[in-house]
Amino acid sequence: MSPHPRVGREHILDIAEKLFTEHGYKSASIRAIASECGVTNAAIYYHFPDKESLFAEVMQRHADNLREKMTIAGENIDFPREKLIAILKAYINTIAGQHAPIFMLRKDAKHLKKHGQHRAIWIQRVSQPLVKALQFAQEKNEIKTQPKAEEAASMLLGMLHGLAQQRRCAGIEGRAILEDDIEMVVNLFWEGIEKQ
Amino acid sequence: MSPHPRVGREHILDIAEKLFTEHGYKSASIRAIASECGVTNAAIYYHFPDKESLFAEVMQRHADNLREKMTIAGENIDFPREKLIAILKAYINTIAGQHAPIFMLRKDAKHLKKHGQHRAIWIQRVSQPLVKALQFAQEKNEIKTQPKAEEAASMLLGMLHGLAQQRRCAGIEGRAILEDDIEMVVNLFWEGIEKQ
Repeated sequence: MSPHPRVGREHILDIAEKLFTEHGYKSASIRAIASECGVTNAAIYYHFPDKESLFAEVMQRHADNLREKMTIAGENIDFPREKLIAILKAYINTIAGQHAPIFMLRKDAKHLKKHGQHRAIWIQRVSQPLVKALQFAQEKNEIKTQPKAEEAASMLLGMLHGLAQQRRCAGIEGRAILEDDIEMVVNLFWEGIEKQ
Repeated sequence: MSPHPRVGREHILDIAEKLFTEHGYKSASIRAIASECGVTNAAIYYHFPDKESLFAEVMQRHADNLREKMTIAGENIDFPREKLIAILKAYINTIAGQHAPIFMLRKDAKHLKKHGQHRAIWIQRVSQPLVKALQFAQEKNEIKTQPKAEEAASMLLGMLHGLAQQRRCAGIEGRAILEDDIEMVVNLFWEGIEKQ
């Protein structure tokens, strides 16, 4: 039987996420997290070998949540281009709703030893609904099979991030990307910039 | 007359770049930079009000160098699509040649107070040759005039960065982007992913 049956992993992750977000990775100690959970440090270490593992799970839970919202948004849409638009709208709307926390957490992740690995997991999880939608479009013979769906998904997300960065550099306040922009980006990705 | 006529700005910038790159922004002190230049701290402060300004100029010099290589690569090419390809090849080849230094410096820039501003200047300078090439294509009536050239340039660069990120996440060693990839990306941007 577990020595700490009443301290659930999910509860620890909730508290850890709150403290990492409020104080940053370095300042939020295992002791503070345990204290806020009302348990000993050992109860935390029972579930997570170290602080970095705990942080990595907080990030992965974020990625899973985002992926789920994207997947649900694209379900039951039969037209690949519209599927992509719906998935990306869910992506920007979810991120906009939690902007500060998730960016603060991801910035913090730069200090970690396995940063590259955490980042790769995060990106792969979040881009998965796009990859599936692009594979679906390839199977329907609507789009080219080169580049591969994984590469096409990363380029599509890159267009969106590039546009967001440009808007912020140009001094846009508030949300850099609106729902209309998603349609513009997907249409450009789909049809190209060439004048027909 | 200058009180430090024999210490040129360019020489200070060379030494500062070397020390920032080798030791990181925080560890490279004005004293160490002055010492390596063979002058007093005051000689440095004569040219730069503080360490952050010195760092910002190092970064901007990098951006100017990159921009110049991109501009030269695109000169005398009359076909807009080929111009874009040439400019982006110069971009990846220059960055590949100085990969570690420039990325280390840009990572360090995150600690600075005016980080957003430095970053905006960097991005605007580096994307300028692409913006001009896209405006040229718009004037020749070859591409759509919406999105604007600045936005189109940021999306094109974003595709490239997204692809590089995907390759690194997939465990590619060495150069993530090759010259052939540039042609693939520009062609996709130009014509879209849709099967004709």
